Amino acid sequence: MKSTTNMGKPMANYAAARRVGDFVFMSGVVAVDPAKRRAVAGYDDIPEEARTALQGVGYATGQMSVDVFEAAIVAQSWFVLERIRQIAAEHGGTMDDVVKLVQYFRHLPHYAFYNRVRGLFYPGEPPVSTVVEVSRFLPGDEVLVEVEATMYLPQRAT
Amino acid sequence: MKSTTNMGKPMANYAAARRVGDFVFMSGVVAVDPAKRRAVAGYDDIPEEARTALQGVGYATGQMSVDVFEAAIVAQSWFVLERIRQIAAEHGGTMDDVVKLVQYFRHLPHYAFYNRVRGLFYPGEPPVSTVVEVSRFLPGDEVLVEVEATMYLPQRAT
Amino acid sequence: MKSTTNMGKPMANYAAARRVGDFVFMSGVVAVDPAKRRAVAGYDDIPEEARTALQGVGYATGQMSVDVFEAAIVAQSWFVLERIRQIAAEHGGTMDDVVKLVQYFRHLPHYAFYNRVRGLFYPGEPPVSTVVEVSRFLPGDEVLVEVEATMYLPQRAT
Amino acid sequence: MKSTTNMGKPMANYAAARRVGDFVFMSGVVAVDPAKRRAVAGYDDIPEEARTALQGVGYATGQMSVDVFEAAIVAQSWFVLERIRQIAAEHGGTMDDVVKLVQYFRHLPHYAFYNRVRGLFYPGEPPVSTVVEVSRFLPGDEVLVEVEATMYLPQRAT
Amino acid sequence: MKSTTNMGKPMANYAAARRVGDFVFMSGVVAVDPAKRRAVAGYDDIPEEARTALQGVGYATGQMSVDVFEAAIVAQSWFVLERIRQIAAEHGGTMDDVVKLVQYFRHLPHYAFYNRVRGLFYPGEPPVSTVVEVSRFLPGDEVLVEVEATMYLPQRAT
Amino acid sequence: MKSTTNMGKPMANYAAARRVGDFVFMSGVVAVDPAKRRAVAGYDDIPEEARTALQGVGYATGQMSVDVFEAAIVAQSWFVLERIRQIAAEHGGTMDDVVKLVQYFRHLPHYAFYNRVRGLFYPGEPPVSTVVEVSRFLPGDEVLVEVEATMYLPQRAT
Amino acid sequence: MKSTTNMGKPMANYAAARRVGDFVFMSGVVAVDPAKRRAVAGYDDIPEEARTALQGVGYATGQMSVDVFEAAIVAQSWFVLERIRQIAAEHGGTMDDVVKLVQYFRHLPHYAFYNRVRGLFYPGEPPVSTVVEVSRFLPGDEVLVEVEATMYLPQRAT
Amino acid sequence: MKSTTNMGKPMANYAAARRVGDFVFMSGVVAVDPAKRRAVAGYDDIPEEARTALQGVGYATGQMSVDVFEAAIVAQSWFVLERIRQIAAEHGGTMDDVVKLVQYFRHLPHYAFYNRVRGLFYPGEPPVSTVVEVSRFLPGDEVLVEVEATMYLPQRAT
Amino acid sequence: MKSTTNMGKPMANYAAARRVGDFVFMSGVVAVDPAKRRAVAGYDDIPEEARTALQGVGYATGQMSVDVFEAAIVAQSWFVLERIRQIAAEHGGTMDDVVKLVQYFRHLPHYAFYNRVRGLFYPGEPPVSTVVEVSRFLPGDEVLVEVEATMYLPQRAT
Amino acid sequence: MKSTTNMGKPMANYAAARRVGDFVFMSGVVAVDPAKRRAVAGYDDIPEEARTALQGVGYATGQMSVDVFEAAIVAQSWFVLERIRQIAAEHGGTMDDVVKLVQYFRHLPHYAFYNRVRGLFYPGEPPVSTVVEVSRFLPGDEVLVEVEATMYLPQRAT
Amino acid sequence: MKSTTNMGKPMANYAAARRVGDFVFMSGVVAVDPAKRRAVAGYDDIPEEARTALQGVGYATGQMSVDVFEAAIVAQSWFVLERIRQIAAEHGGTMDDVVKLVQYFRHLPHYAFYNRVRGLFYPGEPPVSTVVEVSRFLPGDEVLVEVEATMYLPQRAT
Amino acid sequence: MKSTTNMGKPMANYAAARRVGDFVFMSGVVAVDPAKRRAVAGYDDIPEEARTALQGVGYATGQMSVDVFEAAIVAQSWFVLERIRQIAAEHGGTMDDVVKLVQYFRHLPHYAFYNRVRGLFYPGEPPVSTVVEVSRFLPGDEVLVEVEATMYLPQRAT
Repeated sequence: MKSTTNMGKPMANYAAARRVGDFVFMSGVVAVDPAKRRAVAGYDDIPEEARTALQGVGYATGQMSVDVFEAAIVAQSWFVLERIRQIAAEHGGTMDDVVKLVQYFRHLPHYAFYNRVRGLFYPGEPPVSTVVEVSRFLPGDEVLVEVEATMYLPQRAT
Repeated sequence: MKSTTNMGKPMANYAAARRVGDFVFMSGVVAVDPAKRRAVAGYDDIPEEARTALQGVGYATGQMSVDVFEAAIVAQSWFVLERIRQIAAEHGGTMDDVVKLVQYFRHLPHYAFYNRVRGLFYPGEPPVSTVVEVSRFLPGDEVLVEVEATMYLPQRAT
Repeated sequence: MKSTTNMGKPMANYAAARRVGDFVFMSGVVAVDPAKRRAVAGYDDIPEEARTALQGVGYATGQMSVDVFEAAIVAQSWFVLERIRQIAAEHGGTMDDVVKLVQYFRHLPHYAFYNRVRGLFYPGEPPVSTVVEVSRFLPGDEVLVEVEATMYLPQRAT
Repeated sequence: MKSTTNMGKPMANYAAARRVGDFVFMSGVVAVDPAKRRAVAGYDDIPEEARTALQGVGYATGQMSVDVFEAAIVAQSWFVLERIRQIAAEHGGTMDDVVKLVQYFRHLPHYAFYNRVRGLFYPGEPPVSTVVEVSRFLPGDEVLVEVEATMYLPQRAT
Repeated sequence: MKSTTNMGKPMANYAAARRVGDFVFMSGVVAVDPAKRRAVAGYDDIPEEARTALQGVGYATGQMSVDVFEAAIVAQSWFVLERIRQIAAEHGGTMDDVVKLVQYFRHLPHYAFYNRVRGLFYPGEPPVSTVVEVSRFLPGDEVLVEVEATMYLPQRAT
Repeated sequence: MKSTTNMGKPMANYAAARRVGDFVFMSGVVAVDPAKRRAVAGYDDIPEEARTALQGVGYATGQMSVDVFEAAIVAQSWFVLERIRQIAAEHGGTMDDVVKLVQYFRHLPHYAFYNRVRGLFYPGEPPVSTVVEVSRFLPGDEVLVEVEATMYLPQRAT
Repeated sequence: MKSTTNMGKPMANYAAARRVGDFVFMSGVVAVDPAKRRAVAGYDDIPEEARTALQGVGYATGQMSVDVFEAAIVAQSWFVLERIRQIAAEHGGTMDDVVKLVQYFRHLPHYAFYNRVRGLFYPGEPPVSTVVEVSRFLPGDEVLVEVEATMYLPQRAT
Repeated sequence: MKSTTNMGKPMANYAAARRVGDFVFMSGVVAVDPAKRRAVAGYDDIPEEARTALQGVGYATGQMSVDVFEAAIVAQSWFVLERIRQIAAEHGGTMDDVVKLVQYFRHLPHYAFYNRVRGLFYPGEPPVSTVVEVSRFLPGDEVLVEVEATMYLPQRAT
Repeated sequence: MKSTTNMGKPMANYAAARRVGDFVFMSGVVAVDPAKRRAVAGYDDIPEEARTALQGVGYATGQMSVDVFEAAIVAQSWFVLERIRQIAAEHGGTMDDVVKLVQYFRHLPHYAFYNRVRGLFYPGEPPVSTVVEVSRFLPGDEVLVEVEATMYLPQRAT
Repeated sequence: MKSTTNMGKPMANYAAARRVGDFVFMSGVVAVDPAKRRAVAGYDDIPEEARTALQGVGYATGQMSVDVFEAAIVAQSWFVLERIRQIAAEHGGTMDDVVKLVQYFRHLPHYAFYNRVRGLFYPGEPPVSTVVEVSRFLPGDEVLVEVEATMYLPQRAT
Repeated sequence: MKSTTNMGKPMANYAAARRVGDFVFMSGVVAVDPAKRRAVAGYDDIPEEARTALQGVGYATGQMSVDVFEAAIVAQSWFVLERIRQIAAEHGGTMDDVVKLVQYFRHLPHYAFYNRVRGLFYPGEPPVSTVVEVSRFLPGDEVLVEVEATMYLPQRAT
Repeated sequence: MKSTTNMGKPMANYAAARRVGDFVFMSGVVAVDPAKRRAVAGYDDIPEEARTALQGVGYATGQMSVDVFEAAIVAQSWFVLERIRQIAAEHGGTMDDVVKLVQYFRHLPHYAFYNRVRGLFYPGEPPVSTVVEVSRFLPGDEVLVEVEATMYLPQRAT
């Protein structure tokens, strides 16, 4: 299995995702920009259209003293879910086929921010969901959230 | 997928469980009483018959100085596993169909208590099991254990 | 399901692994030597051939002041992956059939050591992989890594 | 000077506000409900119309796992600013006459929440403003923000 | 503006107080004895009549095991308020003209002690008042309270 | 009131200063470079002539191992006081009209450095002054000092 | 030995007191209200006449910002000593027959408060007394003081 | 007074117990095995019959992941109470003559475990009892509980 | 009972000791010099002959870098035991009549020092003894050890 | 003595090395890049040939998740030893003439990494060696290792 | 070798310095005043001429709020270097013969202060120099810097 | 240079000592028993005659509760100094030729113990001496002291 997206190549030597039977398992995704080799730090690290979408739920205010506390988790939430959407698309699926999410946070109050961003990807009911606060992620302390997704995409009979 | 049990409605906007193929994935379950909107704190937060069952394994002693250290984790363990049993039942299964449990604790010595309670739900051998200590759960510090269950319930051919 | 390997019996009362449909789910594995009833502490706790293999990636140097910082995580990494390989073999599979690993660490810088050891078990690309740092494992503080593996091994038609 | 509002009587024996010359100095205000003798803890402690207003800026979502992290600071911010508005009104002024705010927080990331709430009281430009994070407030740890206001309200010539 | 009191000279190079218009602003006052160049530590550092007054509100008991926990904050509270009274007097005012106090503490439970002492200076209602707990004061850790006073003393027309 | 200086625009949506009667109240000032959107970190973030002035009081030594401990607080002290001087000038005043300063530090030993820098702005006696150590400032941990100034500038009769 | 007082039944399964020879040994007493099954938290948890007595030594002021820091230890001190008085009475003695007190505190500065309350029970010289600060009491962190009393009450010859 | 038991000799140079009048005072007892010169660590350090008795109250399960958290305090509780029983026997008494226990713990939640073990020694009501959590015991951190017993055993008239 | 020794008067308002029946109970003793109203800090705070005795067991070396770590606990140990000896003498007894000691330390490694000093007072076997490490003593942090003694001194028949 | 190498000029005003008699003493060396005025942070801060050499001992893997934990100490170790080699060369010596190294680390587990790098400079036996973990180095927290070298290079007779 | 200076006798039983061959090794020097038997605490503990010299580099300002943070390290730096100068003189050398300094600090930001003081002793280039931050010095926490000097002073041929 | 002693082989790959000119430099020595590959933990880890010598200065008392706090540092001190004596002997010298010691401790109060042990090796005046407290030593936390010795042993002319 080889990732072909130009947005994110794996930062370590393991598969980004793998189909087995009717399932596509994905590796845990973190918001590390492969080009810059560092974690997403704020709104400058995500595309213009992402910022616009986030403004729709009240973030990316442009006020430095507000954004400083929200930008990292909001931008990482977007980045991680967008990356999952891309991997799903590479395998022929959509976010609706992603049926389970295990969501790890370094700081659980970040869930409130993440939850609003996830609403952009799941306008309806989100999938089965587990949320825990853990200690740290690869590659370092700036990573605030990791999401492990499972996609169910039955193979077409031939 | 919509939870119809009157015991626990999800405390956030995601599905409690979802069938895909022969599997039913469940969201991580914590012991939050939906009516009281707070975590289960002790034996008063669980039904009478639960207390009786727990006395059978030595808990719910009625001695304040003993119960104070045990009540929260013992009652939460019972609540979480009972909730999983209910979700399983809603999908037509039993605890024996729940084949895998990922069990997160805030304080690992709580495993000893949880293990005795789990014995009430699995008189025989418990399913495949992963146990880790993490930092915190939703919605807050009083939650001591979260369990994510996977049920295998092959669809009947028609 | 009963483990028959003479290397590791479960340290608690739950199944080491369980086949459901085309999948074999494994319980989280830690490096506890069942005979000694304590966590693997260093190179003396693993077989001679393991030490030789590890020397090939630069560990087990024999210098006390170097090994003291590396032995525990390197030897535990080997023990855990070897145990997974054994469980896979008991079910008729190999490491290549193990398609997903969730890897928990107590101290994330240990990933670098673990990664080199994993390369001995996966000379090619490792499977889908999630890595998080958590607080603690059973049965205690000396356990540095826990790995939960999922094997995909389609049942042969009969 | 005696406070006549039925919303908040001072929790200690000092004046809530005092006019000297063209100025009205106010004591630092915290969100302590005089009837309940405890700090405002969430959306249940503020009036219905306040909740509606806060929903307009994205808070008071009704989702327990989101509100749990936001309710205390958001509701306290509203309570404190509303109390200042009342004191101003008691002296014949409006929020626009409140020309300076010194805002103390226990946890500076709360500024982002407070800032959105303040926008409800100051649709235009807020007054001169100082923000610092300090250690604690009266009467205890649950108080998250304290605001000291200065009103300029020239006395009418007679 | 030059302080002429023989009780306290400023411990740094700035004005103790300054009249501007109808106001006299005072620098934050701490209980540092200029002669001894160290913070007030107990009842021995204040005058006999102060001790007598404090006994009237239950302090300065003479029991070592009681005074040891109360002497520093009680004596500093007296020293600071007396110093403010002196500065007020130097400008022709009294404590009743001091219309606003910002009171910083290193340890907020000290407020209870301070409050009783302040009652000696304000037998009636104290002025507008802000209280916050901060981290430290000049010149060092032994200083427990700092008070910044504002006096309103309209200039007589001539 | 709108700030027109090209050196510093407010980093949040509130007024930098406001004249009411004979007073000009200023918002608390921190050393954040609006262009770079980050706190002043050292001598490279202030103008050449500032460095020269600071060398006159013994700072900006050019020795890396000395400057590393002094540059941030010394440069921030200069930046903050210069900003206050600019705001005063925008309202027609000078530093001598700034009659009161409330000075907050994150680390009180920084006062010694700040004090020498303030001497550059107040060759004579500095104004009324309050100094406290608090926990943190907007927009983050790198900000070491915040100063809130009050200017007295009687309006000319017309 | 069975406690017959209606004020406090033991919170665990051991004797409240026991006569042996001329002595009556008492179990360590803490301020836990048996009806409410929680520690005494403030003045509302003790009788009206106790509040009146405590006002005589300067406590129970009715000012929330003062009482918040004093109420728990003052009310617990009263409760514990009153409970000892009751046990003494049940055995036919008075506080004067209680000849030795071992007093444990969680926070030693509480001794000053306790000492004033003890003066209400021992208007003359208190008995032999040991005071130490320890870590915690049953049943939990809210308990601030525990007192172990020994009564000497020679048996009447018959 | 000289201890003649072969189970435990004092680990320091003081008497294990001493009769004075009708009382036998005992030194504080900790669970240190004199032969091994280290604290009791688990079920292997106590006799077979002790393990059997403890299984009757639910301990000594044989499951490593459960016992790891319970073995030390349970086995120490048994050891300490058995040692007190022996000392009592050496002086001609039984546990019923031990009328008072002062019980120190390093970690108060251990009381729940200790309480069940004490029930094995006192099938009826336990004696007068004081429980406090302290910091440490001789000879080191592994000691979890210390009990000081007082026996009342009237001397026979001759 | 009133202490008549000129060495130590109680630092609080309770009895130093009290005879009841054949026992003399003593209050816990700490090394506070009543004249200086502070804890014994070193060898200068004890008499010459005490220093000489201590040199006999290897302390009071006169080397500043050695004594600095040992002087406080060694001198306090001597002071406390000497005070107990004096109280015993005031009641007509000797150290041999002191049959039980409860010894509290702030730092348990101090026991080794204390033990050597106690050997000067008990050349033979010391009495029944309990040793625990607690958090703090009256009147403050410099007090390192507190000893509570019980004397048995049968009343002579008349 | 003046350093002429273009790789590293001293970051403070003292000599890099000094010959006295047959010895050349060197100042402690840290990995600070004089051009960038900051500590060496990773493989990008050292030359291409250094990276190649380090790959020979298993470092500089190119995997971000591995290198992130190893790059700083490995690159600093190389930089420091290369700098010592240069200073030795400037004085006419080689690494074999450097007969003694005092090696300070901020985090002792870094020794294992350093040791492998030192093997590149000392293919045979390294010199006399002292290793200690200390708290910090100039110019700041990013510096992980400091090495003080002594060279013995007898002067040629003339 | 015996120190004959009247300024500082060693505070422990080892040699202050020792000539071997062309070298004079000195023991690590700390700023402990042998007469007062305590560490140098400020400008009052050093001679008048030292204060004057230090004023030349901006210290010893006489302002309490400035000196409080600088006096201890500045005065200790002077004391230690002056002591080294004296020892050098006792052996016939000067500061220029002191060719190597190992400088230990408890708090590395003190280097900036020390560096300015050292400039008074080395107007030209200082000797070879190693600087590390360690944890503590003899005889206690108030000692902030220790310097170990090596002097090279070739013996004159005879 | 190769160590030939049968007591201690280096625990890492560097020289134990090296002669250069008239000096013999020694690597820092720690008390690690090469046979057991672990740090010296107590009196059982040193020879009988060492214990006897230590008893002469009051250690190795045989009382478990005393030795537990002293054994590790006392035995390590002896081991380290004996090892230095051996290395000196291997090069033809004695302790009197060891002219300088740099002594690092993990816990500075250990100096008092070490000092008495050093007196056994240096009955007269010890050599030039530097003492600092650092954080840790190789190979781990149990090592309490490291000593680096320098010997001066002029080469005999031939």
